[in-house]
Amino acid sequence: MSFIEKLKDAWKRTNSLVCVGLDPDLARFPRHLEKNAEAIFRFNKEIVDATHDLVCAYKPQIAYFSAVSAERQLEQTIEYIRSNYPHIPVILDAKRGDIGSTAEMYATEAFSRYGADAVTINPYMGHDSAEPFLRHADRGIVLLCRTSNSGASDLQDLVVDGAPIYEHVAKMIAEKWNANRNCLLVVGATWPAQMAKIRSLVGDMPFLVPGVGAQGGDVEALVKAGQTADGTGLIISSSRAILYAGSGVDYAAAARAETLKLRDTINKFRCAPQPDIAGTDS
Amino acid sequence: MSFIEKLKDAWKRTNSLVCVGLDPDLARFPRHLEKNAEAIFRFNKEIVDATHDLVCAYKPQIAYFSAVSAERQLEQTIEYIRSNYPHIPVILDAKRGDIGSTAEMYATEAFSRYGADAVTINPYMGHDSAEPFLRHADRGIVLLCRTSNSGASDLQDLVVDGAPIYEHVAKMIAEKWNANRNCLLVVGATWPAQMAKIRSLVGDMPFLVPGVGAQGGDVEALVKAGQTADGTGLIISSSRAILYAGSGVDYAAAARAETLKLRDTINKFRCAPQPDIAGTDS
Repeated sequence: MSFIEKLKDAWKRTNSLVCVGLDPDLARFPRHLEKNAEAIFRFNKEIVDATHDLVCAYKPQIAYFSAVSAERQLEQTIEYIRSNYPHIPVILDAKRGDIGSTAEMYATEAFSRYGADAVTINPYMGHDSAEPFLRHADRGIVLLCRTSNSGASDLQDLVVDGAPIYEHVAKMIAEKWNANRNCLLVVGATWPAQMAKIRSLVGDMPFLVPGVGAQGGDVEALVKAGQTADGTGLIISSSRAILYAGSGVDYAAAARAETLKLRDTINKFRCAPQPDIAGTDS
Repeated sequence: MSFIEKLKDAWKRTNSLVCVGLDPDLARFPRHLEKNAEAIFRFNKEIVDATHDLVCAYKPQIAYFSAVSAERQLEQTIEYIRSNYPHIPVILDAKRGDIGSTAEMYATEAFSRYGADAVTINPYMGHDSAEPFLRHADRGIVLLCRTSNSGASDLQDLVVDGAPIYEHVAKMIAEKWNANRNCLLVVGATWPAQMAKIRSLVGDMPFLVPGVGAQGGDVEALVKAGQTADGTGLIISSSRAILYAGSGVDYAAAARAETLKLRDTINKFRCAPQPDIAGTDS
């Protein structure tokens, strides 16, 4: 099953557009956990076990692992999700980007070593930097378009022929890079007007949407701006607001409650919400 | 000593603008070496020992390590250079780029975990994605500007207010991001006209120049386009043409010969070449 099929299946199964971002920050770990690389897998496992029926994807952020030499824990985390919840796609957030031969190595890192279903990449270097990823037709290639941070405007908003660069990026990806129908775009939750414009340019291409929760993006505005006609099209990612909702031994339950709340808030604004088929009131 | 001071010192000591890119590709390793992660450190060590008096920097490309789970070998390689040739700066080629909190983790990866003197990053996400790197005043922050690959034109050449995006990027970095005087730019060897224009915009800011050797950039044209008034300003990186110059047991000697040839070719076109003080005819 390709990434896109797996994603559509997950949207339906869990009636959820929520993606939990796995950003294991030792400095914010629950008090009772040790502050070392080994604890990272245990932390992720408990978060995944507590939220798997409420999410359409998990998104481990590789920087949080590589800063503390926790490559093994990243492998274990993805392996655990694939073994126990094989219907949930894993997006490796790595934002890689380099020329052909090096990009091939990065694709090997994401897809072969870590076994991710999808990976985020940076489009600044152009088509030949994306191609070694794009040719993996069964994987999702998630390209930065309009990011959620304040500095996004520095480059992404510069105007070329009457339209900002991020619109050119969106069109280029939709028209030229998406031959395998495996592209997605990163569009920040903090910019609903820009999101609506991008949606009008790229059809049903899914968006990975960071910036709700800690970064303060407005859920109603983003869902209305970004959803497709069937009420999907969005992978709405929240990391810190879920992972660190609690700081005690009950942190996984607190993460579940926060995930459920976000899922239900999102679903209020979906134009054709699916019936709740997963029995998630446990 | 800051990265920039270390670089200036290395330019002078070795009378060289050459940077050897450490892209250890197991598939291209000399026949007698084993094709596993452990062999990577041995390979790098021999290349470094054979070229240290001919280079101004080493540039390990992290993708070649992470694709084969060779993080430990990357640590060993940088540690070996720092211990044995402490005057040669190490640029970690990683092209990272993400929002603030994640960028901090990437800076920790590059500077604390691996101990690199400098790191390459991608400017697409704007100033707040660069800031967690820039604040390390003693390290070099090498930002993508005009890359050497053919796809570079897809985004970097789009015209904003009469000038291509890469010129806006160069100016923004020179005027706003360089408060700590620790920025450098990636400018591909394959575009000497663009390089000359960028040089006119950013003063003496050093350029990291990939694209000679395997990618075919013309040495005379790039040196004349990019050097500063004192005949420096360039870190000219070659990887595959040096690393895989030989495929037998004498691969390190072949790498040395190729490095010497590139250094001397470059020096022919420098406007104020330094005298050869390193005695490199051994």
